[in-house]
Amino acid sequence: MTAGEALEGVTLDDLPLREDLRGSSPYGAPQIDVPIRLNTNENPYPPPAALVADVTEAVREAAANLHRYPDRNAIALRRDLAAYLSAATEVGLSEREVWAANGSNEILQQILQAFGGPGRTALGFEPSYSMHPIIAAGTRTEWLPAPRRGDFSLDAARAAEIIAERRPSVVFVTSPNNPTGGSLPLSDVDELVRSAPGIVVVDEAYAEFSSRPSAIHLLREHPAKLIVSRTMSKAFAFAGGRVGYLAAAPAVVDALQLVRLPYHLSVLTQTAARAALRHADATLASVAKLAAERDRVAEALLGLGFTPVPSDANFILFGSFADAPASWKSYVDKGVLIRDVGIEGHLRVSIGTPEENDAFLEASKEVGR
Amino acid sequence: MTAGEALEGVTLDDLPLREDLRGSSPYGAPQIDVPIRLNTNENPYPPPAALVADVTEAVREAAANLHRYPDRNAIALRRDLAAYLSAATEVGLSEREVWAANGSNEILQQILQAFGGPGRTALGFEPSYSMHPIIAAGTRTEWLPAPRRGDFSLDAARAAEIIAERRPSVVFVTSPNNPTGGSLPLSDVDELVRSAPGIVVVDEAYAEFSSRPSAIHLLREHPAKLIVSRTMSKAFAFAGGRVGYLAAAPAVVDALQLVRLPYHLSVLTQTAARAALRHADATLASVAKLAAERDRVAEALLGLGFTPVPSDANFILFGSFADAPASWKSYVDKGVLIRDVGIEGHLRVSIGTPEENDAFLEASKEVGR
Repeated sequence: MTAGEALEGVTLDDLPLREDLRGSSPYGAPQIDVPIRLNTNENPYPPPAALVADVTEAVREAAANLHRYPDRNAIALRRDLAAYLSAATEVGLSEREVWAANGSNEILQQILQAFGGPGRTALGFEPSYSMHPIIAAGTRTEWLPAPRRGDFSLDAARAAEIIAERRPSVVFVTSPNNPTGGSLPLSDVDELVRSAPGIVVVDEAYAEFSSRPSAIHLLREHPAKLIVSRTMSKAFAFAGGRVGYLAAAPAVVDALQLVRLPYHLSVLTQTAARAALRHADATLASVAKLAAERDRVAEALLGLGFTPVPSDANFILFGSFADAPASWKSYVDKGVLIRDVGIEGHLRVSIGTPEENDAFLEASKEVGR
Repeated sequence: MTAGEALEGVTLDDLPLREDLRGSSPYGAPQIDVPIRLNTNENPYPPPAALVADVTEAVREAAANLHRYPDRNAIALRRDLAAYLSAATEVGLSEREVWAANGSNEILQQILQAFGGPGRTALGFEPSYSMHPIIAAGTRTEWLPAPRRGDFSLDAARAAEIIAERRPSVVFVTSPNNPTGGSLPLSDVDELVRSAPGIVVVDEAYAEFSSRPSAIHLLREHPAKLIVSRTMSKAFAFAGGRVGYLAAAPAVVDALQLVRLPYHLSVLTQTAARAALRHADATLASVAKLAAERDRVAEALLGLGFTPVPSDANFILFGSFADAPASWKSYVDKGVLIRDVGIEGHLRVSIGTPEENDAFLEASKEVGR
C-alpha cells in the first residue's frame, strides 16, 4: 500500500469531527464553466487598466519586504476606507471607527466571536444571506431565524417585536437584502436597533447599488449597539482581493482586536486594496450602469411573464418556476449560470454586462417553468 | 457633540462583550521602531530580486480579474505546496493531502473549529506557541496545559501518559518548539500520536531550520489522527504574504472545507505564494546561513555567561536574568528589540543577519542581568 492509498482510505466518518458538522457540505455556489456566469453577484466590469497598473506597482514595492510581518492593525488601509465612507455618506469617520478583514465573512465571524458564541444567540430575517447562519454555526452561536413577509419585504414593526421577545445577542439586518434585493429606510433600521438588547449588524454589502442612505448615519445614535459591515467585493469590483470592512464605535474595533488572528491581513491585501481605493471613482462608475441594467432586466422579465422582486442591489430574485432546480439546470444547458438560492419557485440572477444580460433574457424565453 | 465624540464616548465596558474576553488584551509583540528588530522570528533576508519580479508579474496578470472571486479551493497553490513538501520530505503528496489558509494561525483555527470547540479539549506542552491557547479560547475549546521538563525538553513517555489520561480532542506538538527551540525525534512524535484518542497537530512552523525528519513521514501510519502544519512565514521569508498550510489525509482536508470561510484566500495571496514557491531554492538558501549563525550566537552567548537553550529553529531562548522584563527594556534602550515571552529569567532572540547578531551580542555584553 502506498502512502497515498493509506491516506485515501480514511473517510470523514473515521475522523473525530464535531457532531454538528456531520452530514453537512461545504458552502459555495457551483463553479461551472459556462459562457455566461451571473451567479455570485460579482461586478462584471474588469478593473480599469490604471487600477491594474497601480495595484501592480504597489505590490512591487511591498514585495521587497515580504519577509516582514504586515502592519497588524492595517492602519493605512483603515484610514483610506474611512475616507471613502466619509465621502460617500458625509458622516465623518476616522481609522478608529473602521476595521477590515479578509472579506466581510471574516468581519462577521469576528463579530460573532466577540459578541456571540456558545450560550448566545444571533437572529436574522430569512431568506437572507445564507452565510449568516453558517458563520453563527461556525462560532457555535445559536441561530434564531425570523420571518419576512410573503413578498420578502421586512415588516419592521413586527421584526422589532420579535427582537424584543427573543432578545438575541446579535441581530443581522441585510440592506439591500441578499438574495431578495430590497433595502430598508433608515427609520426602519432605527426601529430595529432600538428594540435590540445587544449588537445589531447592518450588512450593507450591496449599499452602493441602493439610493437609500447608509445605516452609518445612525452610528452616533447607537454607538454601543450598531455595526455597519461593507465589502469591496461587489461595487468595488475587488472580489478577488477579499476585503470586507465595518464602521462602528472605536470600542467595537477594540473588541474585535481581542479575537482577530494577529497579522490577519497580508501586506499584499493591504497594499492592493489601498491602490484599488485610489481608483474608487472609476470603479464605482459601473454602479450607475449596473443599476440601469438591473431596472431594464427587471422590466424585461416582467414582460416575459416572470415576477421579479423589486431590487436595490446588483441582482434580481425572480419567479415563478414550478421546479426551480430543473429550470436552473435548463439555464445551465443554455450556457447561462444563475443561482438557485433555495427559495421555492425562484432563481436569482446577477446583473452582468448588457450583452450578458441579453443572453440571460434570451435564455429566459425558452427555459422551462 | 460630534459623531466622533459620541462614538469615542463608548468603552469596552459599554459593549455586550463575551464575559471570557473581558480584561484580555490583543495578542502581538510590541512593534517598536528600533534599528535592530529580532523579535518575531522573521527571516532577515529580503526576497531575492527575481522573486519580487515574479510576484509582481503574477499579480499584474491576476489583477485583471480582481472583479471575480478566487478559486475557492486554491487547487493550484495546494498542488505547488504539495510538490514542495514531496521534494523536501520524499513523501509523495498531492493537492488532495494539502490545505492552505491565511497564515498557520487560520489553519489552526479551522482545525479547532472542526475537531475542537465547546465541550471539547485541546492540550499542549508549555511553554510553547502562545497562540495555541488563544486560538483554543477563540473557538471555545477548553485548554489543557501540560508540562515540559525544567530544561524545556519534552519527556515523551510522560507526555504520552498525560495524553492517555486526559484524552484531549486535539493535541498540539510543536517541533521545533517555539519559544524554546528544541525539536522531537520521529519516534517521540509517534509515541505521542499512538497515545492520543483524537487529532494530533504537529506544528512544524520552523521545520526547515531543523535537521530532524518531518512528522509527514508518519502520516501513512496515522492517517485518521495526524495533521502536520507548516508556514511560509519563516524559512520562506514570506511573513508579509500570510500563507500557512498543512499535510494530512484528504478526509481531514474535506473536514476543514466544512468550516473554512468561502473564498478565504485572495487571488493575490494564491498567485504571490505560487510565485514565491518557484523561488524556493533561492529563499531556502538562507536557512543554512541562519542555522550557522544560530550556532555562532549560541556559542557567543555561552561565552558571555548566558545559558542558551539548545535550538533547532531560527531563534534562541536564553537566560538567566534576575528581571527579564527589565533586561528586555535594557536591550530596547540599546536599539535591539528582542522578545520577552513570559518565561521567568529568559528572553528570546530571533537570528538576524550577521551584522544584526553582532549588534545583539554587543548589547548583551552590557545589558543588566
